[in-house]
Parts: sequence; C-alpha cells; structure tokens
Amino acid sequence: MANPTATHPAATAETLPETPDFDVYPVTETIAAAETEGGSVTLTWSDGRTSRYHALWLRENAADEATINPLTREATYDFTAAPEDLHAASVGVDAAGALAVRFEPEGHETRFHPGWLRAHDYSDHDSGGAPAALDPVAPQLWTAADMAEPPTFDGAAILTDDAVLESWLTALARFGVARLRDVATEPGMVGRVARRIGTVRDSNFGLIFDVRARPDPDSNAYTSLALPAHTDLPTREYQPGLQFLHCMENSTAGGNATYVDGFAVADHIRRSDADAFRALTEIDWTFTNRARNSDYRWRSPTVVLGPDGGYREVRLGGFLRGPLAAPFDKIGPAYRALKLYTKLAGDPAFQLAFAYRPGDLVGFDNRRVLHGREAFDAGGGARWLQGCYGEREELHSRLRVLARNRRAAGG
Amino acid sequence: MANPTATHPAATAETLPETPDFDVYPVTETIAAAETEGGSVTLTWSDGRTSRYHALWLRENAADEATINPLTREATYDFTAAPEDLHAASVGVDAAGALAVRFEPEGHETRFHPGWLRAHDYSDHDSGGAPAALDPVAPQLWTAADMAEPPTFDGAAILTDDAVLESWLTALARFGVARLRDVATEPGMVGRVARRIGTVRDSNFGLIFDVRARPDPDSNAYTSLALPAHTDLPTREYQPGLQFLHCMENSTAGGNATYVDGFAVADHIRRSDADAFRALTEIDWTFTNRARNSDYRWRSPTVVLGPDGGYREVRLGGFLRGPLAAPFDKIGPAYRALKLYTKLAGDPAFQLAFAYRPGDLVGFDNRRVLHGREAFDAGGGARWLQGCYGEREELHSRLRVLARNRRAAGG
Repeated sequence: MANPTATHPAATAETLPETPDFDVYPVTETIAAAETEGGSVTLTWSDGRTSRYHALWLRENAADEATINPLTREATYDFTAAPEDLHAASVGVDAAGALAVRFEPEGHETRFHPGWLRAHDYSDHDSGGAPAALDPVAPQLWTAADMAEPPTFDGAAILTDDAVLESWLTALARFGVARLRDVATEPGMVGRVARRIGTVRDSNFGLIFDVRARPDPDSNAYTSLALPAHTDLPTREYQPGLQFLHCMENSTAGGNATYVDGFAVADHIRRSDADAFRALTEIDWTFTNRARNSDYRWRSPTVVLGPDGGYREVRLGGFLRGPLAAPFDKIGPAYRALKLYTKLAGDPAFQLAFAYRPGDLVGFDNRRVLHGREAFDAGGGARWLQGCYGEREELHSRLRVLARNRRAAGG
Repeated sequence: MANPTATHPAATAETLPETPDFDVYPVTETIAAAETEGGSVTLTWSDGRTSRYHALWLRENAADEATINPLTREATYDFTAAPEDLHAASVGVDAAGALAVRFEPEGHETRFHPGWLRAHDYSDHDSGGAPAALDPVAPQLWTAADMAEPPTFDGAAILTDDAVLESWLTALARFGVARLRDVATEPGMVGRVARRIGTVRDSNFGLIFDVRARPDPDSNAYTSLALPAHTDLPTREYQPGLQFLHCMENSTAGGNATYVDGFAVADHIRRSDADAFRALTEIDWTFTNRARNSDYRWRSPTVVLGPDGGYREVRLGGFLRGPLAAPFDKIGPAYRALKLYTKLAGDPAFQLAFAYRPGDLVGFDNRRVLHGREAFDAGGGARWLQGCYGEREELHSRLRVLARNRRAAGG
C-alpha cells in the first residue's frame, strides 16, 4: 500500500530531532519524498537515491523518550514486546526536514533525523554501501620501499594538543606504527600517553613494564641479543591490539628497533605462493608461555582473515611457539609456510630499522606490526625502554570522538 | 629406511631429561620400540599405540641447551635455519626410558621425555586424539531444571586455600557461574579475589566499579528497574571473559540476581529452530556505546561458534544494540531470531534467580552466562555491589597451574 508524501499530523516542529546517540550527522542530502510500502518506509533523497527501512527497525531506533533514556541515550524500548503486525501507517517530511512516522497498532508517533537516517541506510548493504567500516581509518600496507622511518609527530604536545593526538593516531591506525619525538623522559609517561587514548591493558608483566639492557644481564630478556620479529602475548586469545615503547635512555651501539607490517608480508605471500598462504591462514599453531606461575595457551593460524577476506591479525612468536598439533601430512606444509613468513618478516625489504632516541615513543598495532631489535653492544652503555599495552578498540573509539568533536565544531 | 631399535650412542643417562616447559608429565606408558622411517621417528608404546614424529618437529621441541634457554625454557633455536634435509638418522630408547635421537646433517644428539612425547603425540589428530582442548574443564550446559542455585564455595578461605580456589574455579569453568559465600565485605575485596586468578581487566567504568541502588537514584544505572539478561561490554571486540560481583550490602526487597546459560539457550534453539539458529550465528548485530567521551563499536552475531561447531561466545545487550545493518530481506529473520533468543533468556525455565547476601561473590563467564536482575523496591533499603572484570585465559592458566602443582605433589 503506497502512501504518497503528505503533511503528517506530528510534522509541526521547526528543528531537527535528536539522534539515538551522541554523534553528529551533517545533513548532506534532504528527503525529497517519503512513502509507506507494505508497512516499511521508502525514502527518495535529493540526490535520487532510494532507501527502504523496516517498521520495527525504525521503531526501535527512535530517539524519543518512549524509546531511549534521554540522558544516557541507551535503549529502554523492549523490541520483543512490539506487536507482530507493527507497521508504518503514515509518513511525512516536516518543516525541519525530519521524517515523521506514525506506527500502528501502537499509535506511536515520532520523528527521525535525516542525517542519521542517511548514515544508517542499509538498503544497498549487498553492494557495499553499508555497514560503515569498524575501522575509522583504512589500513594501508607498507614495505621498506614506502618509508624509511615511521611517521613522526611532536611528542612534546601530545598530552595537551588534540590535533597532534589525532594526527598521531590516524597514522597509527593507517600504518600500524607511528612515532612521537621529544616525549618527556619521566618514568610512567608511556602510561600517561596511552591513557590519552583509553584504557591501558594489564598483563602478568605489569601495567608498565621496563625493557632494560645492562652490562650485567641477569635475565634472558636483558641480553643484547637480536630479537626476531614477533607479536607480544601470542599466548592469549586476544593479543594486545596496541603496544607503546618509550625510550628513556639509549647509549648503546647498535640495537636498532625493527618494525614490519605483518599484513604486507602476508599479502606478498598471498600473491606469490597460494599454498603457503593457505597453510598460514588455515593451520593452527600453538602458543604456550613457559613459567612457574602461569600457563597461558592459545591456538591460531599465523594470519587470521576476517569474513571479508581482509587481514585481521597476525600472530608470530618464535620463542613462545609450542609443539605443533596438526594432521601428520600438514606438518611439512605448515613448517614450510611459517619458515617463508618468518624469513620475509626478517628481510630488510619489509623492515623499518632505526635507533631509539631518548624521548622517542613508538605506538604500534601489536596484532599487525611485528617488532624486534637488532643485536647491540651492551658493554658500551645502557638501554632502557618503558612499555605498556592498549587495545585497537580504544584507538578506534578515540579517533571517532576526536572526529565527532571536529564535526560538532564545524571542522 | 627403517632403523631397528638399538642402544644409541648418547643413550647413557639414568634419569629422564627435562621437558621444554615447566609442566609435569607422569610416564603412564613406556616406549617399547623406536625406529626411523623416511627421516621421521616412529614409536611403539607399551599399550600398543603407534606415534609418528617429524624430524623438524622433534628437533625444535628438544629440551636441551642448544634449543631452549634452560632458565626460561623459551626457544632459542632458529627453525628457519634448519637444513632442508634434516632427518632423524638414528634413534634408541635409553636406560631411563627416554627417546634418544641423532639428527643429521646437524650431527645434533638429544633426548626426549616419554611422558612429554606421549602428551604431544599428534598422530591421531584427525581422529580427535590431539590437540588437547584449550579448555582445562569441559563446559557443561545447564537450565533451571539442573540446579536451583549456583555451585557455592567457602569464600572465607578463598584468599589462602588453593583447594577451595580450584574447586570454585573448576565449577566456574564448567558451568560458567559459581558463587562464594562469606567473602569479607571490605571495599576492593572483589579485586583481591580476582587477582587470585590473574590480571584484572580495566575498562572505562574503572578497575573496580560500584553498582549501587539508592532511594535517590541520580542515574539510570542506579534505578530499581529490572535489567534484562545481557553480557557486559558487548561494544568491544573482546567482551570480558570473566566478571565478578561482590555483594557489600543488600537490604532491599526483591532485586533477585538472574543468571542464564547463554550456550544452553543457543543449544535449545539449535535443536528446535534451525532457521533461527542460522540467523543467530550468521547475521551481525552492531553494538555501540552512547557516551560523550567514548564511542566503542563492534559487530558480531549473537552466537559465535568455534571451528568445531562448539559454542565460543554469546553477545546480548539490548540497551547497547545499535542499528542493524544487513541485507534488506535478512532484517525480518534477524529480528525474529533475536526476539526468540531474548525471550528464552528471560524465561524462568533457563534462569537461576536468587537474592544476593552480603558476602556473596559471584564469578561468571561474561561471554557465556547472561546476567540481569529483577525489579526491586529501592525505598526500603540499600543495595551495593562491587564488580570487576577478568579474562577466560586467566582462569584457564590458573586452573592449569593448580593442576600442575597437584601433579608435582603426586596428587
């Protein structure tokens, strides 16, 4: 049943309604026409696009006080109690440009913000129009040919300047690694910088951990040996999404930091060796930590793809890899593929290698970018990094809020 | 090339070698015969079982000082540098019962612990013999017909008694919920109990959060309204694996806690409504938090299955559910399935409902067991819970270490 656009009884307001969240939705296109069709609502936009919305979808996403708590904007409406025959009985576009809808048999009338409706249009879901990506910034793969140093920003301003913060975090999201320079070398500063983004993730190594190399090493972690490219905490179901390393002191010779885009390595193999790529994405390796008071274990392929075939994470930790458990005739292909991946991850063609300067603070996506270090001469000086972990979701949340604040300011 | 069992040159030790980890491996079966076959090693055990091990697999899992750091037992051997033609050239069983192997062309000789070899046998991987499950305790689904109260343990002893800790954690792993009684009602105690397991997970709600209901509610979270069954932090990629709620004070009438096995609800639908189960496991819902200073979003099906078809997690959070984004003709089936799941999760047939007593501390798997509360009369008293989050992996690690300690003690 088509219902031509008409002035709706509730369509009297002069201003746009609130949205069911705290985001900001500029109105880039207006609603040219609205009609009901089989209980759903069809909109035609000023640019000619057509969008369809189900009645229950609209009803439960209303922004009125019968649906959400206006203070928290969290839903209070119980969609399970909606009438089975709920439908949009009449629709209209009011003076402010909002969509007005009357739902029957509830008799509920409400208004929708056109910017919000356009942003959440799911009509062309199959053709890629929706849903919006969960990553606020699309990852961009890189090798050593693309950059000689990580993208670098002003660390002196990081605690107070949101523009610097957003630039650094945008690069971190895009490349998986980004550096600050001249961050004050105060103990614990790495945690303060990480908290500009969000929550710091604790682990059995402590909230803030010290990586020290000394002339008198008393532990394997404090030697001057090279560390091959790896992810941290591969023994956990959810490896930390972010890691931050802050150089407090470095007077040693050598010991360059190395960073590799693990997605770029995977992508190289995807294009050049289909068998190896299949083994890397399908055969589970086991990761086990060796300690007297903890026994973390997880099992995962080296490269994890999302449902869309995109790269979700890599997991590589030579010294924490446990015994492979796989069908007998997959053991050979699994080793071959991991050897290929590991060798490429150690190849200068894929690697950034640079010396830490005191005040450098490198943030990286620990589920994408592999880190390591070259061997160095510990006899000649001291090397002290402070580190902590965070999560991708904190990065994404902060980037969304920074962008929202810019939109609200009209920027 | 078969090489019959023979006394190996290196097979002279009288005691079993170390293992490449800190676990304890009782020798339940001995090695009756060992031979090489195409460079691999074939063992025949005292119970007749046959196991085959690849040369590179054995080589990189050796427990000697050329392969691991004896202090940390972390690998130092670089498997990518192993010769392409690495093979087990000769094998034997020594006086202590260890497997002795000489690898060529490396010329490396080493010994393997038979208990460790048996535990990591991957020969019958395809028939379910390996790998060992990552869950130290198999989950057991339940409904209200199976228990009227959660399994309950002595909270007064929880900080000091490992046997009580292990009993509580075993029940928590099996049923997804387990209660302590008589935990001292000191502020912060919930964190001390959680740290008996492992790391506490921080969030934007704080490391330890207070859930209070007062006669003068000043926030939606502090009302006396019923809360439907939900998981916490569904807006994060990785919902907290554990949650702990400690009752400090409860003098209100009503307000029963409710707990539901979300896996049991899913399993009921799997057996009774295949279409709904498919929608629950395949169609992504969006979860978004509404706040001025954070904007977490994640997209996931309601029920997530593992590669083996087993239940991995559920995600349900009515008031944090965002606008559904799916192909137009999947919107109806998605709502129908979620409505069915939500109604069953609120059905007393699936629910434990009980009153918190001061000193009660409930631990639950927040990715499996849904929690909620019934409405209560806030005019009659105060209700104060303290809570914190943890992770499944901390639970599993602690259970493994507790079991290892028992094995080491011969228990």
